[in-house]
Amino acid sequence: MTYCVGMRLDKGLVFMSDTRTNAGVDNVFTFRKLFTWSLPGERAIVLQTAGNLATTQAVVSLLNERMKAPGDRNPSILEAPTMFQVARLVGNTLKEVVQSQSDQGPDADSTFGATIIVGGQIAGSDPRLFLVYPEGNFIESSDENPFFQIGEAKYGRPILLRGYDPAMSFADAAKLLLLSFESTLKANLSVGMPFDLLVYPEGSFSVDKTRRIAADDAYFQTLSTAWAEGIKEAIAGLPDFEL
Amino acid sequence: MTYCVGMRLDKGLVFMSDTRTNAGVDNVFTFRKLFTWSLPGERAIVLQTAGNLATTQAVVSLLNERMKAPGDRNPSILEAPTMFQVARLVGNTLKEVVQSQSDQGPDADSTFGATIIVGGQIAGSDPRLFLVYPEGNFIESSDENPFFQIGEAKYGRPILLRGYDPAMSFADAAKLLLLSFESTLKANLSVGMPFDLLVYPEGSFSVDKTRRIAADDAYFQTLSTAWAEGIKEAIAGLPDFEL
Repeated sequence: MTYCVGMRLDKGLVFMSDTRTNAGVDNVFTFRKLFTWSLPGERAIVLQTAGNLATTQAVVSLLNERMKAPGDRNPSILEAPTMFQVARLVGNTLKEVVQSQSDQGPDADSTFGATIIVGGQIAGSDPRLFLVYPEGNFIESSDENPFFQIGEAKYGRPILLRGYDPAMSFADAAKLLLLSFESTLKANLSVGMPFDLLVYPEGSFSVDKTRRIAADDAYFQTLSTAWAEGIKEAIAGLPDFEL
Repeated sequence: MTYCVGMRLDKGLVFMSDTRTNAGVDNVFTFRKLFTWSLPGERAIVLQTAGNLATTQAVVSLLNERMKAPGDRNPSILEAPTMFQVARLVGNTLKEVVQSQSDQGPDADSTFGATIIVGGQIAGSDPRLFLVYPEGNFIESSDENPFFQIGEAKYGRPILLRGYDPAMSFADAAKLLLLSFESTLKANLSVGMPFDLLVYPEGSFSVDKTRRIAADDAYFQTLSTAWAEGIKEAIAGLPDFEL
């Protein structure tokens, strides 16, 4: 499994991904699930992937190859005029890869399925965030749904619903995401550290504000301990139930 | 779907169940998923059910019928000498019902499957808590795993892991369970109010400490509002992330 969140804030976009991939409980690997492309001053694109690793790697490789082969009939995500067109290209590439693995065509239940979060900004328009399904179609984030989760999303959802605020700072968003990931980590073996964080300030057209948070990260350890205390205090501070 | 939790405390057992059943999003009903039997001074038995409603209702009906037909070759859960034997009877009854619906025998993935929490106490031994699988086999709670969740368990798990303490009072346990259910409610349509709460103090051999918590319950509404604030304050109180 996997856990990735892409989030839209007033100030830009934030992304966090875990790095554990597993086939059963034996074949456990660390793989990056956060991919970036940029043209300074012009565009920044971020992908987060969940699902079959062979599928997601093939999608990323195809997207990369198509940048280097301008004669290819499929345009490159570095040339697409809008983020909507970028999401379409990613969706079509994903559908193509899933279809090539499966006799029955792309299907959310397919062993070869994957789900992809696509976010970024192209000069002249606002940052946008999409969720691409294995069938190749996709939805866009909105004020009512300002973040997308893929993979093992349930454990970490309540705290995101409670803690999210579009006006929050990037540092607060990173803290909230770390809490959501920490909750998931505690409950599910298939999500593992290190986590990849990427912060995209609107208008920066840069994807270099990244940080890898490893299990021995001092801040993460402090946060985890403080949260265990903080949540107990928060519960204790609530009015008592009368039996 | 469904959400039920059975929990072992130093002082006894606590159970909470939602009441929503649905087939798709159209056929939404309110059904009780918490069932009790008792012989004053001698035994108290609690069942919580998740899964196919026809299956769980058949299991409960069969358990009831067998109490009234002493000649039946299957003994009654009111006669079984230990809670282990009660769990076995429940498991066998469940397996029998699932098998009768399915050509391929009982199977966790079966449309007819169900999962059951069995808890209670028989005079002469401690309270015990079991989780019964659709295949009829079961596991018992332990100090490391003092509670079982069935149905839509993921959303409400992190707070249980954080907040549980075996020494807690029944009132605190009820508050913790309400928070876990509230988190689930906010994230998932298939879990719905009212909730059924049952508190079983060790040695009471009584199942009458019950309460139904409806959507308009004043305490639940206060709790929900206070929790929204409490969790935001708890997050704000944590050390800041340095970008």
